[in-house]
Amino acid sequence: MINVEMRQYGKERSAIRELFEKGKVLKEKYGESNVFDFSLGNPSIPCPEIVNNTLINLLKNAKNLDNNISSFDANYINKYRKLSSTDLHGYSSAQGDKLVRDAISAYLNKTYDADTTSDFIYLTSGAAAGLTISLKALTNGNVNEEVIVFAPFFPEYTVFIKNANAKPIIVEPDYETFYPDLNDFKNKITKNTSVVIINSPNNPTGALYNEQTIIDICNILKEKEREYNHPIYIISDEPYRELIYVDKKYPFITNYYNNSIITYSFSKSLSLPGERIGYILVNKNATDAIDIYSAVCGSGRSLGYVCAPTLFQYSIPYVLGFTSDTSVYKNNAKIFYDELTKIGYKVIKPDGAFYLFVKSLCDDDKEFSNKALEYNLLIVPSESFGIKGYIRIAYCVSEKQIKASIPKFNELYQYYKNCK
Amino acid sequence: MINVEMRQYGKERSAIRELFEKGKVLKEKYGESNVFDFSLGNPSIPCPEIVNNTLINLLKNAKNLDNNISSFDANYINKYRKLSSTDLHGYSSAQGDKLVRDAISAYLNKTYDADTTSDFIYLTSGAAAGLTISLKALTNGNVNEEVIVFAPFFPEYTVFIKNANAKPIIVEPDYETFYPDLNDFKNKITKNTSVVIINSPNNPTGALYNEQTIIDICNILKEKEREYNHPIYIISDEPYRELIYVDKKYPFITNYYNNSIITYSFSKSLSLPGERIGYILVNKNATDAIDIYSAVCGSGRSLGYVCAPTLFQYSIPYVLGFTSDTSVYKNNAKIFYDELTKIGYKVIKPDGAFYLFVKSLCDDDKEFSNKALEYNLLIVPSESFGIKGYIRIAYCVSEKQIKASIPKFNELYQYYKNCK
Repeated sequence: MINVEMRQYGKERSAIRELFEKGKVLKEKYGESNVFDFSLGNPSIPCPEIVNNTLINLLKNAKNLDNNISSFDANYINKYRKLSSTDLHGYSSAQGDKLVRDAISAYLNKTYDADTTSDFIYLTSGAAAGLTISLKALTNGNVNEEVIVFAPFFPEYTVFIKNANAKPIIVEPDYETFYPDLNDFKNKITKNTSVVIINSPNNPTGALYNEQTIIDICNILKEKEREYNHPIYIISDEPYRELIYVDKKYPFITNYYNNSIITYSFSKSLSLPGERIGYILVNKNATDAIDIYSAVCGSGRSLGYVCAPTLFQYSIPYVLGFTSDTSVYKNNAKIFYDELTKIGYKVIKPDGAFYLFVKSLCDDDKEFSNKALEYNLLIVPSESFGIKGYIRIAYCVSEKQIKASIPKFNELYQYYKNCK
Repeated sequence: MINVEMRQYGKERSAIRELFEKGKVLKEKYGESNVFDFSLGNPSIPCPEIVNNTLINLLKNAKNLDNNISSFDANYINKYRKLSSTDLHGYSSAQGDKLVRDAISAYLNKTYDADTTSDFIYLTSGAAAGLTISLKALTNGNVNEEVIVFAPFFPEYTVFIKNANAKPIIVEPDYETFYPDLNDFKNKITKNTSVVIINSPNNPTGALYNEQTIIDICNILKEKEREYNHPIYIISDEPYRELIYVDKKYPFITNYYNNSIITYSFSKSLSLPGERIGYILVNKNATDAIDIYSAVCGSGRSLGYVCAPTLFQYSIPYVLGFTSDTSVYKNNAKIFYDELTKIGYKVIKPDGAFYLFVKSLCDDDKEFSNKALEYNLLIVPSESFGIKGYIRIAYCVSEKQIKASIPKFNELYQYYKNCK
């Protein structure tokens, strides 16, 4: 009675993990510094110093308090400066500590005119949890329900959609901008469409949707909501929101569309992907916003998320608005983009995130990725992102590594040139 | 298209949370120290000092490393003493860091003769995640599948079982020992039984199953496995494993039954419930153990658990075998048990955990719990644990609070005595 689908998910892992394993073998054979691993989106820049300092302060205070005063009293003296160890590591309320949610809502109001309150924020164990929780909350478990994703997309979206028992529907990109093809989008919306996931800045292309694209997407959905007479929700997945390298406005989704939810993670902005800390924001102007928030709470409970990790919860008010030194990624993006285009590669110019999306030199991107392995280059075929003919390069690595890899990319290019 | 079931889960919360909210109102009215809150299982003892010290050391080392050497090199110098900030807070492998899993398996082998390896350990965000992950891994999503729980049981079990799309089947207790009624157990097993959840020391009774009970349960299951010709898995939920106050052997389930999985949390033993850190152990002698482990990995992936929080993962090797000062709970249990029985209450003598299970003074435990509120006593009716006519008292509070509550329990007792 083992769940065969789960076994398969566990065995296959993702194509990215598979590549990671192949990379390990190469590294053993050729040595660490001779293998160029661009497979994983694991931040390479340390978190800003304030993060570890805050954590240490919270822990040190907690230690002193346990010796001197009862945890019961400490709770009410000064919530943030003097949390005893039992408070610091104890259960928070399921939706997250109230004062932490207050701090987040104040930050979002100040930064994005979000017009929200702590009552619409739910702390999560990262954006992946935010997605599984939201998707389950916004679909009723009926297999007919459809969730639209814009290709190319983060591969786990389809896994998370299936967990909610819904069906992923893939919309093609415009191959110039790598924004969604709006005609295809319009055609793919049906009476069964419950949710549309957007992800900007985008993994894997680095594209940042401009305001007009957001407006166009929202207008199409508003029309379809009227046509089908039920809400169609946008889930905006925003782990890369602070990783933007161009001078463009970030169109904050709740200002454009009422039936929207944001899933956010501090993984990329603060280089904390392993710590699993983020939040869901429910647009308070959504149809039945309070019911949606309840369903988010219920869905989190049902999936086993008791509360977001508390030490990291309590650190949030101190670190909001800080980011890792993202200029490093911006610099990497520029060098890598320039060098690869100089060789002759067709590269999508990235506006944000830390990925380059590059046209494969042969039709079959998997074959191309395998060929690249022969040059000790680990790059992910686009097939797993829902489109064919591209590869993804994660440039959250050292500049040195990027520069050292260029001759290999050149050799790979020459190989294909000579083939033709 | 909001998920109505999830909305309901979110609105209702549990009876325990409901009581917690009522308590808040009382505390505002009568003052914190005049309300006796025995509703929540939130550890009242600080974690052992080594926990916060280890966390601080890991964070301090990480800070120094970020200034001096590249994260890339730091990874390989000395995994535990010198993790850079990017490593410390970076993604671990999905099943948890290999060396952390090594440490856990070594500890379990030494302490319980567990005969396991790191390949069968999967780190989780606490025991709740361990349960939702295991339940989904061991059931195929077919609504006919049944999961047996022994009443009284932790109320969230039914929520987690329904998340796996299975049906909870409740077995009655023996009302003397509060071990399962083995005849009822035998009768409730059907061809659709996939999983049996056991929980010892038990929430809410504090009962610790003795070895013979474990053997009896396993023998019944082995017979039924032969009869139905398919595995029936035991999930042993063990957050209270180190909270035992009697001199009894702890029968470690994998030594008694092959088709078993353990879900463990450091929440109670180390007073870290908010941090969400624990693990799943798959018995390596289970039928298709490797497939089960794969299904656990896949199920974790599908539910959105990317990895267990890494700072806490890396602290585990240093804190294994330590516990909070559980003698405080033992002392609380003794005082509370003695005082309540002296008044005339019928109390189940607890062997472990931090709960007292007490016979309600009227048939309707919910009515009794409501009446107790009039005496500023917050106690949970047993209805939510799957049986009627009892209440649960969580004694993870200060000794002072327990002693101050006794006159109130006396008044409550006299009220019911005078009624009759």
